[in-house]
Amino acid sequence: MAGELDGQRVAIIATNGVEQVELEQPRSAVDGAGARSTLISLSTDPIQAMNSDIDKGDTFTPDAAISDVSADDFDALILPGGTINADQLRQSGDVVSFVQAFFAAGKPVGAICHAPWTLVEADLVRGRTLTSYPSLRTDIRNAGGNAVDEEVVVDAGLVTSRTPKDLDAFCAKIVEEFAEGAHGVRDAGATAQA
Amino acid sequence: MAGELDGQRVAIIATNGVEQVELEQPRSAVDGAGARSTLISLSTDPIQAMNSDIDKGDTFTPDAAISDVSADDFDALILPGGTINADQLRQSGDVVSFVQAFFAAGKPVGAICHAPWTLVEADLVRGRTLTSYPSLRTDIRNAGGNAVDEEVVVDAGLVTSRTPKDLDAFCAKIVEEFAEGAHGVRDAGATAQA
Repeated sequence: MAGELDGQRVAIIATNGVEQVELEQPRSAVDGAGARSTLISLSTDPIQAMNSDIDKGDTFTPDAAISDVSADDFDALILPGGTINADQLRQSGDVVSFVQAFFAAGKPVGAICHAPWTLVEADLVRGRTLTSYPSLRTDIRNAGGNAVDEEVVVDAGLVTSRTPKDLDAFCAKIVEEFAEGAHGVRDAGATAQA
Repeated sequence: MAGELDGQRVAIIATNGVEQVELEQPRSAVDGAGARSTLISLSTDPIQAMNSDIDKGDTFTPDAAISDVSADDFDALILPGGTINADQLRQSGDVVSFVQAFFAAGKPVGAICHAPWTLVEADLVRGRTLTSYPSLRTDIRNAGGNAVDEEVVVDAGLVTSRTPKDLDAFCAKIVEEFAEGAHGVRDAGATAQA
């Protein structure tokens, strides 16, 4: 349904190494549903996207730097994958705090492929069920999460998928979850309100 | 001292995305000290090395596939870094088993940058002190390891460093540790014999 995200502001965080299709396709999905997306990075320098992690794709110019935005200004968050992208983002305290603020406010979040590393870094997977690229599952379990191997998983507003092959299901589910809006405060162990 | 590794056989495991200098410099160091190194990969197809993780470097032809080698045939092991390399290697059950066999036999192991992810996957960091690229430290701690920020760390035959900037110290220390030979059985919690 076009328009189901009318008026929503969606943050997308990415840096060098982002898997290009995981940036473009979810962004198109939410914008196509009426949202206004903002590409946020570590700075406003252009970022280098990759295809299948090892071949350079296009460059993208961020709309804002993470240090200049607040989670309060957004209704939902998308974290694309890409091994190097996720590995770099998890090292930013600003990114970790920004993501934690979405969870604290119960705002919906979509994370695909390697993106859950940032959730591990932020101690946000504890007690939650999620899927990811296979390499992350030990890290997710060691961080207290329940890692499963499914096309798309929803746990109280957190939408996760494994790889670009899951993008159709991932995009449909983030639009659906974003349309539902905030899910109440989702502290670890709390009973989330769907 | 040239010749201090005379007669030693050193395994090096790498795949696509290996950080080129972390493959070449340690290999030169052990070969230069008299060892005979063997480059092992997931298959014998040429692998694509990277520079600073995002620019393609040279390709390297492995000497052997992991499925065709046994840890019994080697005296020591080097695990170079590279984000994508380490992320891929940890997903191979053959690689994980091969690395576990070195630890079980107390044979010395050098791991730099992102390489400790494979040790996390193999549940080999529990109770050990090691360093790594900064992004891995939460994963190491969640796996029961003591992650520190130092140029080079030695814990009962396990030599670790953080980035290519540490290569001089890393290479000197792996030659020293490899020259000492096996350190006795290094099960988690066991008292290692230096």
